[in-house]
Amino acid sequence: MSNYWSKIARNLDPYVPGEQPKDRQYIKLNTNENPYPPSAQVISAIHSATNEDLKLYPDPNGEALRRAIASRFELSADQVFLGNGSDEVLAFTFLAFFDPGRSILFPDITYSFYPVYANLFHIPYRCVPLNEDFTLPVSEFRGDNHGVIFPNPNAPTGNAIAAQAVEEILRHNQEHVVVIDEAYIAFGGESAVPLIRRYPNLLVIHTLSKSHSLAGLRVGFAMGDPELIRALETIKNSVNSYTLDRLALAGAEAAIKDTAYYQGTKIKIMRTRAHVVSELEKMGFTVIPSQANFIFIRHPVQDAAELFRQLKEHGILVRYFPKPRIDQFLRVSIGNDAEMAAFLRTVSGLSIPYGPAPH
Amino acid sequence: MSNYWSKIARNLDPYVPGEQPKDRQYIKLNTNENPYPPSAQVISAIHSATNEDLKLYPDPNGEALRRAIASRFELSADQVFLGNGSDEVLAFTFLAFFDPGRSILFPDITYSFYPVYANLFHIPYRCVPLNEDFTLPVSEFRGDNHGVIFPNPNAPTGNAIAAQAVEEILRHNQEHVVVIDEAYIAFGGESAVPLIRRYPNLLVIHTLSKSHSLAGLRVGFAMGDPELIRALETIKNSVNSYTLDRLALAGAEAAIKDTAYYQGTKIKIMRTRAHVVSELEKMGFTVIPSQANFIFIRHPVQDAAELFRQLKEHGILVRYFPKPRIDQFLRVSIGNDAEMAAFLRTVSGLSIPYGPAPH
Repeated sequence: MSNYWSKIARNLDPYVPGEQPKDRQYIKLNTNENPYPPSAQVISAIHSATNEDLKLYPDPNGEALRRAIASRFELSADQVFLGNGSDEVLAFTFLAFFDPGRSILFPDITYSFYPVYANLFHIPYRCVPLNEDFTLPVSEFRGDNHGVIFPNPNAPTGNAIAAQAVEEILRHNQEHVVVIDEAYIAFGGESAVPLIRRYPNLLVIHTLSKSHSLAGLRVGFAMGDPELIRALETIKNSVNSYTLDRLALAGAEAAIKDTAYYQGTKIKIMRTRAHVVSELEKMGFTVIPSQANFIFIRHPVQDAAELFRQLKEHGILVRYFPKPRIDQFLRVSIGNDAEMAAFLRTVSGLSIPYGPAPH
Repeated sequence: MSNYWSKIARNLDPYVPGEQPKDRQYIKLNTNENPYPPSAQVISAIHSATNEDLKLYPDPNGEALRRAIASRFELSADQVFLGNGSDEVLAFTFLAFFDPGRSILFPDITYSFYPVYANLFHIPYRCVPLNEDFTLPVSEFRGDNHGVIFPNPNAPTGNAIAAQAVEEILRHNQEHVVVIDEAYIAFGGESAVPLIRRYPNLLVIHTLSKSHSLAGLRVGFAMGDPELIRALETIKNSVNSYTLDRLALAGAEAAIKDTAYYQGTKIKIMRTRAHVVSELEKMGFTVIPSQANFIFIRHPVQDAAELFRQLKEHGILVRYFPKPRIDQFLRVSIGNDAEMAAFLRTVSGLSIPYGPAPH
């Protein structure tokens, strides 16, 4: 760190994404990517957009994609904001709705980017401890705060709350914005989008990375009252007028429209998840009930860091968070059936100090 | 604006990009896009990357593209930072090197995004007035400041300073970062990149939007001392780990490598510029000497806003800035020969109160 760094840069503790190793071929169950390819419509739309027009700026407002999203979620285009992945949408959300000196709430165990944004923009926060079983303590999200954000389903636990519980939080926070980060909602959770009509303080954030097999395309979006969307646009237009390139806009629009295909991959992932959970439970693992495309698991005896290491040695990458309360858990993305069979085989074959607990 | 907006959002005055009208077909000379298509290698690289791997996250560090840029500019990869267009790189630059409470300098007439970033991140600034002829007053960029930023060539004037003048500014600002925004350097200016070796306080920012006919792909980059690059990475990883999608990374790498093609389009644009300048001067226009892919012109008698309006009516879009000192000028991007012939024909045919001044 040199003298040239700003005070902000000196004090940051950036987010660390899951590793993308290049040294060998792994079964990658560490970044919640979708194991199925994107829709053929997406590939075809991108091919069509790969032409001379790349010399021209993209539509800074992404009107066509916004209309497609609005139509899919029964909203109007002015209730939709687009960003370069949901991470960028989240960063702009912190700037648009949260203030230095006014504390916001999020769970103690949650997406680890939230405290990074808060630190970057000097927004104080209070962490609400999850219950012992990692469920969200809904009644704790009220009181002397100026904003709320949490993922539903939560990460890295996979646990979801019902829309009714989300509504309870919205009702008790009508003076400020409640952000529901629904990155994983497609895999069984109940979306808060229908509540947008009734709660002008609700912002729901989605991404195409997981549900639409497009982590490589970087498209996320927020949905909410037009006044909230306008605030996000004001921030965006003060940072970067064109955050989505022409190819991302074209591919995302095709993805949003091909609901049938993605319905299919979603169902496959949920089936695979059910099977994997049942097999792991037979082996004695604790598995947090998941409505996401990953599971959060704890071996009855084996140390999680050691299990992580052994899996990696066997060519299987999962995610380990050396943090209080969750340092004996591993987060495992749901891959395709072959990948998960290999995972289960490997886990059951590992030399484990005392063997799995009796079921 | 609702009560839900943060204090920052309420006080912003965002950048307004040039219009992208959809109502009719214009000759678009208003956003400095390159009139020539991107290299065939770019199209082909993007086609190849449009495959099932879009389900996977891109390389968050863009190693292959950074190596290509490093090799092209005789740097090492750790002297290169990638961003979603040079606007995102600029936004991160303000966060990484400039501090609230410590004033920076930029010209009074310059890229209008600078004051927007400064306001967003609470960085005070002092505007250095350009000389009467719009040249940069080099000796004014020293003194009691904590950072310097300016485009070279400057925007929207097109005027460039020599590398020797850049070096003078660097020498007088060794305590803080000097950012040279070289978005338009390909069209005749002298780049500061060779100074990176000797000045650890120099950051040079480029974009593929103009020089590489890729405004639609959103790729920009910064070059400088590895310590400066690390600061930018720290900021980026506190905002969005993956700012460039797989297709942008693939296309940009191919673009950087196809130097021969882009050398050709650059020469064509410079030739067209010389011809247009000479024709406009014959009509009595004042033309600021330009080393960019646009020119900044003033009609001898006609009001600039009115000329802008008349050109638009005739299907030609240029850029008009209703700002002090430049509200009698128009910025005109250099299109291809046919577009510029149409522009010249239209200008000379417009009904102008007193006719062009004698030459």
